[in-house]
Amino acid sequence: MADPDLKQAITAIARDTKAASRVLLAASTAQKDRVLMRVVDALAGSEGEQVLAANARDVAASQAAGLSAALIDRLRLDRGRLDGVADGLRQIVALPDPVGGVERLRTLPSGLRAGQMRVPLGVIAMIYESRPNVTADAAALCLKSGNACILRGGKEALHSNQAFATIFERALIAESLPSACVSLLPTTDREATLVLIGLEGLVDLVIPRGGEALIRFVTQNARVPVIQHYKGVCHLYVDADADLAMAERIVRNAKVQRPSACNSLETLLVDASCAQHFLPSVARVLDADRVELRGDTRARSICPEMKAATAEDWDTEYLDLILSVAVVDGLDAALAHIAAHGSYHTEAIVTRNYASAQRFLREVDASLVLVNASTRFNDGGELGLGAEIGISTTKLHAYGPMGLEELTTRKWIAYGDGEIRS
Amino acid sequence: MADPDLKQAITAIARDTKAASRVLLAASTAQKDRVLMRVVDALAGSEGEQVLAANARDVAASQAAGLSAALIDRLRLDRGRLDGVADGLRQIVALPDPVGGVERLRTLPSGLRAGQMRVPLGVIAMIYESRPNVTADAAALCLKSGNACILRGGKEALHSNQAFATIFERALIAESLPSACVSLLPTTDREATLVLIGLEGLVDLVIPRGGEALIRFVTQNARVPVIQHYKGVCHLYVDADADLAMAERIVRNAKVQRPSACNSLETLLVDASCAQHFLPSVARVLDADRVELRGDTRARSICPEMKAATAEDWDTEYLDLILSVAVVDGLDAALAHIAAHGSYHTEAIVTRNYASAQRFLREVDASLVLVNASTRFNDGGELGLGAEIGISTTKLHAYGPMGLEELTTRKWIAYGDGEIRS
Repeated sequence: MADPDLKQAITAIARDTKAASRVLLAASTAQKDRVLMRVVDALAGSEGEQVLAANARDVAASQAAGLSAALIDRLRLDRGRLDGVADGLRQIVALPDPVGGVERLRTLPSGLRAGQMRVPLGVIAMIYESRPNVTADAAALCLKSGNACILRGGKEALHSNQAFATIFERALIAESLPSACVSLLPTTDREATLVLIGLEGLVDLVIPRGGEALIRFVTQNARVPVIQHYKGVCHLYVDADADLAMAERIVRNAKVQRPSACNSLETLLVDASCAQHFLPSVARVLDADRVELRGDTRARSICPEMKAATAEDWDTEYLDLILSVAVVDGLDAALAHIAAHGSYHTEAIVTRNYASAQRFLREVDASLVLVNASTRFNDGGELGLGAEIGISTTKLHAYGPMGLEELTTRKWIAYGDGEIRS
Repeated sequence: MADPDLKQAITAIARDTKAASRVLLAASTAQKDRVLMRVVDALAGSEGEQVLAANARDVAASQAAGLSAALIDRLRLDRGRLDGVADGLRQIVALPDPVGGVERLRTLPSGLRAGQMRVPLGVIAMIYESRPNVTADAAALCLKSGNACILRGGKEALHSNQAFATIFERALIAESLPSACVSLLPTTDREATLVLIGLEGLVDLVIPRGGEALIRFVTQNARVPVIQHYKGVCHLYVDADADLAMAERIVRNAKVQRPSACNSLETLLVDASCAQHFLPSVARVLDADRVELRGDTRARSICPEMKAATAEDWDTEYLDLILSVAVVDGLDAALAHIAAHGSYHTEAIVTRNYASAQRFLREVDASLVLVNASTRFNDGGELGLGAEIGISTTKLHAYGPMGLEELTTRKWIAYGDGEIRS
């Protein structure tokens, strides 16, 4: 059980945020955009300097605590990164506001005219790790979509996050909106997070972003809905009658272009009928990019220079220049491998066969299923959503990149003229 | 902790159901419809008699156990009710299959053509109480939308439910589909339910239907997404310049037509400027229908014959011929009352004022918000969805009546021609 004072403090923040979310329901697009443009302007001026000063304190403390260079790099802000944050906010300003749009409005047999109106979810809790720029991105996406948010960032970024939150607070007040539209938890401890994700009725959605351990912790303990962004163990299946030159280009792009991204390729599945021809060639190409290949027995019988894959490899998101390779007997075997080891993220086939393409599109359960294209396209920008808050591998509510529209829901509205039910 | 044997048994059922759900992904609409028509035919013949015989055992056991007459009435099936179940299945057959529909397909700057395809959620667990017909309705809605389901009905209906499940099993096998597409838990005990709603990765969604205690139990203990169908504390606000004759007709319909329904009216809010005129008149009309009125101080100062409402009344779903009545000072006070006491279900305003109507539609957070019509229209049939599995008061994924489409999700699909990301 959480300490009662802590519970009371977190609940009070959530109550204020919930009340703020009701005010946001009535805010105009122009008003929300003006808040964001005030933040952009603030970042360019002395308030931006305050963010950098706060960040320098966080970086110094993390260095003193002996954190890894990679973690400190994720934490660090400089003028260039701050400009990047401001550019991101400008892009969000430029996106259409989904709130208030009405779909499927029609006249029903009763005479009632009913449709579905896009409305904000209410209060979104974001639980994330070290990058302080997530504070600004998440606050902006939530605000533009009409949601109030409660942010709980990483403990090593607390001063940076507070500096960002202060800028949003001032911008909100200047536009006559409650500062609690963007609330930052004053503490990052686990108990506070536990209280937050248990506040049924005050928090409408929790989005954890970070490592698998964080996401599991939130999923296991939340009492409110959670949208997960788990790992991406993405596959590409090279079908019997694939265009092998195309397959080679796609494999290389999917693996090498940005190996640290969740939509990068981790496992290559090759149909037995073309493996003899395809594998030596693709192995040469990937070797030139210093990709380590880990093959199953059949792949290694064709390319003996490959390391042997272990059972664990098939479920591993390497996020590195490593690729596991298996030879499979046709589409059914590929579908079975993906069903057993896929992560509901991104799956692709290369084929010239119409029926294989159609079956793959229909039968693979993943947030993006591609024919003849790189897995790297699973991204809000590439799929036309503009900015995204992450890629959902949860099937409920949103599956795939989450842009502004995915941060809203649809309520029914009805225009009547005295209709009663008979 | 659940007993390991029970955990293993429930997990094995869920694994079989998950495997069956993958087969259903590839099932055609015709194949699914044929299964349902086989069930319709079976219900009309000797298998229907077996359902009635099983039900007679359940009813006898419940009578022996001294269950209430109301509960036994909900449990009881007869030829007429069985025909009603068959009619419901025929309606589901007649509905369009949402699976495979593609929305928003467009060509992106990369050249990739991408859109969103409707796909089943996978495995849906339904946890419900006494009515055995829910077994057939839920199984049919899940099957038509391409989902496998795991059903856990009420313990007093176990034989009836098993008889229904056997009919589905035979119909599935006759159409070359796995019988595990419709799985019934062999036990209704609490431990089994706890195991079921904890199976992350095997169960994609849990839908509890029944009393508030059941829904809270599932929400508190689930480790997989839950869509709730909580109570409906529905309001009607009579605005300053309402058409009072229309308001009277709507109040009467919303309260009296079917008081036991969740979309019936529970609280009437009347603007102070028309209360003096409206309340005595509506009180007379409702008195003729034997509706008990419970008013706040201001309402009782106009209609002294009303009982006094207690604080509890404002949060009570009566499901009976009782109505709480409050006089409020204008739209803002009505919105505040609804925000404080509403249940995200159904809310209505009666007004001739354009701005009041627009503000009410935008600012009230409920699954259906109506202007100048009865709350009783919150129903899948009335809103044009056909059959429904219930009314969601959860904002995530589905908000309002859940028909076939709400039992699906959208994955992204992309048709490429060798595109790689630059």
